[in-house]
Amino acid sequence: MNDRFDRGWAKLKEIDGEAGEKVVAALNDVAPDLGQVCIEFAFGDVMSRPGLDLKSRELCTVAALTALGNAAPQLEVHIHGALNVGCTPEEIVEVVIQMAVYAGFPAALNGMFVAKKVFAERGVQVETTMN
Amino acid sequence: MNDRFDRGWAKLKEIDGEAGEKVVAALNDVAPDLGQVCIEFAFGDVMSRPGLDLKSRELCTVAALTALGNAAPQLEVHIHGALNVGCTPEEIVEVVIQMAVYAGFPAALNGMFVAKKVFAERGVQVETTMN
Amino acid sequence: MNDRFDRGWAKLKEIDGEAGEKVVAALNDVAPDLGQVCIEFAFGDVMSRPGLDLKSRELCTVAALTALGNAAPQLEVHIHGALNVGCTPEEIVEVVIQMAVYAGFPAALNGMFVAKKVFAERGVQVETTMN
Amino acid sequence: MNDRFDRGWAKLKEIDGEAGEKVVAALNDVAPDLGQVCIEFAFGDVMSRPGLDLKSRELCTVAALTALGNAAPQLEVHIHGALNVGCTPEEIVEVVIQMAVYAGFPAALNGMFVAKKVFAERGVQVETTMN
Amino acid sequence: MNDRFDRGWAKLKEIDGEAGEKVVAALNDVAPDLGQVCIEFAFGDVMSRPGLDLKSRELCTVAALTALGNAAPQLEVHIHGALNVGCTPEEIVEVVIQMAVYAGFPAALNGMFVAKKVFAERGVQVETTMN
Amino acid sequence: MNDRFDRGWAKLKEIDGEAGEKVVAALNDVAPDLGQVCIEFAFGDVMSRPGLDLKSRELCTVAALTALGNAAPQLEVHIHGALNVGCTPEEIVEVVIQMAVYAGFPAALNGMFVAKKVFAERGVQVETTMN
Repeated sequence: MNDRFDRGWAKLKEIDGEAGEKVVAALNDVAPDLGQVCIEFAFGDVMSRPGLDLKSRELCTVAALTALGNAAPQLEVHIHGALNVGCTPEEIVEVVIQMAVYAGFPAALNGMFVAKKVFAERGVQVETTMN
Repeated sequence: MNDRFDRGWAKLKEIDGEAGEKVVAALNDVAPDLGQVCIEFAFGDVMSRPGLDLKSRELCTVAALTALGNAAPQLEVHIHGALNVGCTPEEIVEVVIQMAVYAGFPAALNGMFVAKKVFAERGVQVETTMN
Repeated sequence: MNDRFDRGWAKLKEIDGEAGEKVVAALNDVAPDLGQVCIEFAFGDVMSRPGLDLKSRELCTVAALTALGNAAPQLEVHIHGALNVGCTPEEIVEVVIQMAVYAGFPAALNGMFVAKKVFAERGVQVETTMN
Repeated sequence: MNDRFDRGWAKLKEIDGEAGEKVVAALNDVAPDLGQVCIEFAFGDVMSRPGLDLKSRELCTVAALTALGNAAPQLEVHIHGALNVGCTPEEIVEVVIQMAVYAGFPAALNGMFVAKKVFAERGVQVETTMN
Repeated sequence: MNDRFDRGWAKLKEIDGEAGEKVVAALNDVAPDLGQVCIEFAFGDVMSRPGLDLKSRELCTVAALTALGNAAPQLEVHIHGALNVGCTPEEIVEVVIQMAVYAGFPAALNGMFVAKKVFAERGVQVETTMN
Repeated sequence: MNDRFDRGWAKLKEIDGEAGEKVVAALNDVAPDLGQVCIEFAFGDVMSRPGLDLKSRELCTVAALTALGNAAPQLEVHIHGALNVGCTPEEIVEVVIQMAVYAGFPAALNGMFVAKKVFAERGVQVETTMN
């Protein structure tokens, strides 16, 4: 459609794979423009910027969505995304645990159960540790 | 019961129809007073005030509940309410899209999927546009 | 494991009974450390402190989780907890109603429906009042 | 003006003293109705309800406002209020510390610095403890 | 710079006047790109969309920022903006009062004091009413 | 005092330098225990964990505090901290810009102005880019 859309679409597929495409498709009959600006702005303008590697971007997204605590569907998509771009499950677990400090235990627990669901769907084993 | 209650009850029915009555009924065995003050204060004192037309009030409610992001059941009731008092589905979609600016994409996406559910229940077609 | 853990575990069981244990168990395969620090810090360090009785602590927890509005599973556990440590259903209802003032009606309504579910599970009757 | 207003005004003065009156006065030239419904609803309808003692109500308010984290002026008024109705500074400190568990350390730290300011204004000494 | 920027810049000036330009200028030495995407996306893509009149958009923005409660500087800019595009001070006051229902009294009080400051800066008199 | 405290204190100094010590000192007369558990739990238990490098932890903290939007003093401390542990100003700017996607423009703008203040205090020049 335009450069921003193409760049955003490629970035969406790199990060979120089919899960991201499904979110956009679900908007088609009600607000395709929201899907379009999400691809153009969120993925084309912002997530495609140089200056921070994609792994760090996804870890920061997991941090923010866990802390906000009202974005479980998006957290699920971005935990998949974080794994897709090379984050380890152990790193994701670390970020979610750290959110207990900044956003409290309920936010961290709810985030961890989203991570647990994603890991189960992908058959991912987490190397657990005890302090 | 009293003037405020009567005025609030009429306003609740005008905005929310049966959906609002069901919420109040569901409180009966645990906290009928919460239903009562909701009708008296929220609908009798505030939503009944002159000075702003009801359509604008409902659009502002959709904006606020989408932005807060932790009130999906109430957002659902008030998207029904917005349609009941004459807002078009296109206006509701616009307000939800705009919340991406102020409250982020997760809030806007979650709000839009609530709108999509309400539109489907009512058989409402949205006239979609592309920028 | 250590004094903090033992004290926290005892406090967790005193407040939350089996529900708390289940949350911790559910973390075992993904982040047992989060369960451990939750027991050690939240229950061993903080909830075990002298200076405020446990009933007041649980009422304050119900207040905070209702107000935050993004922690329904934890609110459910702590409404059970509040009842377990001697709060009456009427006191819990009062706290949730009061949150309408500070966090709005959606937060209070969502909190009340969690309370209603907990009361139903335990066969608890609330003595309702009308102002 | 009416029973609810009179009851609310008396309760406002009991809890907040002059600080509450000043907030209401500051609304006079822009939205006296907001002051009125605050007195009628928040203080007349809700804070005046039987079923929970005023000390518990104020501790729950301190909990909620600390957790929400965006209501520093109101938290300041209600820490004064909590002291006015008989809460000890030590109990207030306990509630704020507990919020680190549910809303994170930033919320608890910001709440504690509000408490510190209030205690200094009143010349209140807190009996500090170390775990 | 491009069509979206030009359309956004014109819309920013229409809504916010010099206040909006100052925010963008303040970003110049640290993150001019954030100013650019704000103009392009927020004002060029979203606020410029047809389908909802600008007055309704600004009222919805005032509603959302009051409800979120953590965006006082932006609320100030958009209360100026709402007045600039033809909202009356009485309508703005109504929207802020209504937020007491959805986001609680602290959010509404803090929002009203921002409105009071803006009205004072502009020498605007509000026609106050009592229910 | 104990191993956790010593480990946390060393980590606090590594991340935050004197700024962190000042926060803890400011708690001494009102709630030294909150400072102690902050050091022990936040820095000794969580920020000291292996499994995620300190740079990533600080970027995630900047992301979370920007997104939450109600923790400006802590965001200031942690932008200093991020620079102290080797994050570049450009990476910090990137994370804050990205938060516009997840938490909206007001949160990102407010976060950026905190970053601007920190950079000015340290005489840090940001290499700005335009998309």
